[in-house]
Amino acid sequence: MGMTMTQKILADHSGQKSVKAGQLISAKLDMVLGNDVTTPVAVKEFRKAGLNKVFDINKIAIVPDHFTPNKDIKSAEQVKFIREFAREMGIVNFFEIGQMGVEHALLPEKGLVVPGDVVIGADSHTCTYGALGAFSTGVGSTDMAAGMASGEAWFKVPEAIRFVLKGKPSKWVSGKDVILHIIGMIGVDGALYKSMEFTGEGLKHLSMDDRFAMANMAIEAGGKNGIFEVDEKTLEYVREHSTKPYKVYKADEDAEYEKTYEIDLSSIKPTVAFPHLPENTRTIDEVGDVKIHQVVIGSCTNGRIEDMRVAAEILKGRKIHPDVRCIIIPATQKIWKQAMNEGLFDIFVDAGAAVSTPTCGPCLGGHMGILAKGERAVATTNRNFVGRMGHPESEVYLASPAVAAASAVAGRIAGPEEL
Amino acid sequence: MGMTMTQKILADHSGQKSVKAGQLISAKLDMVLGNDVTTPVAVKEFRKAGLNKVFDINKIAIVPDHFTPNKDIKSAEQVKFIREFAREMGIVNFFEIGQMGVEHALLPEKGLVVPGDVVIGADSHTCTYGALGAFSTGVGSTDMAAGMASGEAWFKVPEAIRFVLKGKPSKWVSGKDVILHIIGMIGVDGALYKSMEFTGEGLKHLSMDDRFAMANMAIEAGGKNGIFEVDEKTLEYVREHSTKPYKVYKADEDAEYEKTYEIDLSSIKPTVAFPHLPENTRTIDEVGDVKIHQVVIGSCTNGRIEDMRVAAEILKGRKIHPDVRCIIIPATQKIWKQAMNEGLFDIFVDAGAAVSTPTCGPCLGGHMGILAKGERAVATTNRNFVGRMGHPESEVYLASPAVAAASAVAGRIAGPEEL
Repeated sequence: MGMTMTQKILADHSGQKSVKAGQLISAKLDMVLGNDVTTPVAVKEFRKAGLNKVFDINKIAIVPDHFTPNKDIKSAEQVKFIREFAREMGIVNFFEIGQMGVEHALLPEKGLVVPGDVVIGADSHTCTYGALGAFSTGVGSTDMAAGMASGEAWFKVPEAIRFVLKGKPSKWVSGKDVILHIIGMIGVDGALYKSMEFTGEGLKHLSMDDRFAMANMAIEAGGKNGIFEVDEKTLEYVREHSTKPYKVYKADEDAEYEKTYEIDLSSIKPTVAFPHLPENTRTIDEVGDVKIHQVVIGSCTNGRIEDMRVAAEILKGRKIHPDVRCIIIPATQKIWKQAMNEGLFDIFVDAGAAVSTPTCGPCLGGHMGILAKGERAVATTNRNFVGRMGHPESEVYLASPAVAAASAVAGRIAGPEEL
Repeated sequence: MGMTMTQKILADHSGQKSVKAGQLISAKLDMVLGNDVTTPVAVKEFRKAGLNKVFDINKIAIVPDHFTPNKDIKSAEQVKFIREFAREMGIVNFFEIGQMGVEHALLPEKGLVVPGDVVIGADSHTCTYGALGAFSTGVGSTDMAAGMASGEAWFKVPEAIRFVLKGKPSKWVSGKDVILHIIGMIGVDGALYKSMEFTGEGLKHLSMDDRFAMANMAIEAGGKNGIFEVDEKTLEYVREHSTKPYKVYKADEDAEYEKTYEIDLSSIKPTVAFPHLPENTRTIDEVGDVKIHQVVIGSCTNGRIEDMRVAAEILKGRKIHPDVRCIIIPATQKIWKQAMNEGLFDIFVDAGAAVSTPTCGPCLGGHMGILAKGERAVATTNRNFVGRMGHPESEVYLASPAVAAASAVAGRIAGPEEL
């Protein structure tokens, strides 16, 4: 019996010729990641276990991005604590504000993750790097601590669901719409503990930024990981961003999938996930008249340069609706500067949007745009759980940058074609 | 006996031919200001008094700038509360994020304050508008409520101290250094309840942005207000920004001053206020070796375009010290865009600084760069009280944008000439 992409990566990293679904293995780690929320806990565990050395100072990344620039004394103390740990251990990849970005946008951009890697991160959206053909998954802070010390982690080899993509998406349909469509179809536990493997000729119509957005939300279908077949676009991205050696793993022809879905990209419409679950999707023609108070364009899902460009294309020459605050948060300093240099910030500011320095910010109800009772936001983020962006009686509607920007102008949930 | 500038404005606004120091008067208000911290309290007082109408929908400005973009649920609720009040009352000048800025930078820029105005604001740095030759002072929220209803406020006519400015400041000396020098000289209660009137031939060497920074900090010497003699620079600014009628008041030759100081601008050196009082000043050659962790360039004191330009001049081609976070916060959307279009943001980001959307943010320990225990910041802000920017055991050193930028590069308090 053949192996899936994920299984092949895990076999190689556990020194075995082959592995199968359900098997427990210990795999070598190419990268261990933490942020300002999870790393302090991991460091405490690390200390408690009497450890005083990390396995590889180049294979750990610490990115204070959730409550930075420091929101309050507590967050300032947390960041100080992990900064001191990083210095003491000699960890190379500690990213201070001014050089940083949202972790899952930053690591690929810095070339720290490449195809074939095994990555754990103490953040649920660590699955993002599957866009590069890496095995990458979110873990708890204790696993992060153990990973920092040993360079290994235990995994149960996941079963897989295959998504064979066909056709070409229409103009305003992005990776975000595709993944929302899939989550709407299979549900928030539709891929529980499983690998979501994306393949098919439709892949070529999805940019890397589309793929990052899709892999990022694998966890929202319960997936252990999401992973994309590596193609020329992937390799081009990797050559541009990294000097690390990489390895391309292709699923065997006879790999076992629990299920295979064929997804016709050309049939997907702009899609919005209504409160309070990402599976609660409606296509843009089904949304009805939902007045909104805020729009957030950013996050590890959709804060990349293409997201900024799409938002600008829609906001150009238009004005944000007077009842709406529109907050645009490029995910990294590099994206920030590129968006600025492409003239996108002129468009945003002229439209009446605020442009933030990179931060996770409002996505997790952290800061930089928290909602009051009864307020509704359209956000390009990844979760719309109860109270996710503020008051328990506020609401978050997940959408693509195109829909978010169009909604900011309309003052209600709207597609770009309605403007 | 003649009158000072302040006394003449107050006389005119109270319908009297002349007033003298110590007299209680009720004056007509040209502008009543509140922010997201103080307006909610004022609105509650307003409601409690059974009021349901403001005196003039064009003469009230509400600027949610302290904890915006909303830092947390509480701040989101506060802003929602005052937004609803502004809409109900028909208040024209409610500034949403994306169109806003730090109140004391925003109002002059929007042309809402002109020479000869009487302005109260429920914020201590309302004295900023004295740079325009207006009488402008901070009040409590109850006074704001009464002012919104009646369009009048009670004042005790202040005595005055005159500062006669002479000479030309050297290259790296700005209005900030001049006002820190003065506060160092007279102390934080040196002008208690008094008018600080600035005049003299040295004025012509101070730009409007210099003057805003100086008037802004009158309160840090205990002043009731700071006020500048109107000259051609003032009028140029007013013509460029406002269509409101204005009136220039000049002090009588025989006006009574409690004291007159002659300040030779050419003798002033870059000046830093050490913790924990603005009067605790040292010139840059006396600062010693003070390692720092953060630099903040922004606020109602020094977040204007010239401040951005000076910071850029110093940061150009240099790198922020690796132990320092540098946060740059243009005070308004207009300044933000102008700084960007002048290429200053390229310089900031290349140097490793984070550029924030306009907010008061860290100045008052609000958000966007709070300090942990033991951390030290050089800030272009106006107060360095215990715990002002975060932990009670953190420290704030007040300085000009030039010193702040140079310190960001040096990793310790440093003047531009040390780089």
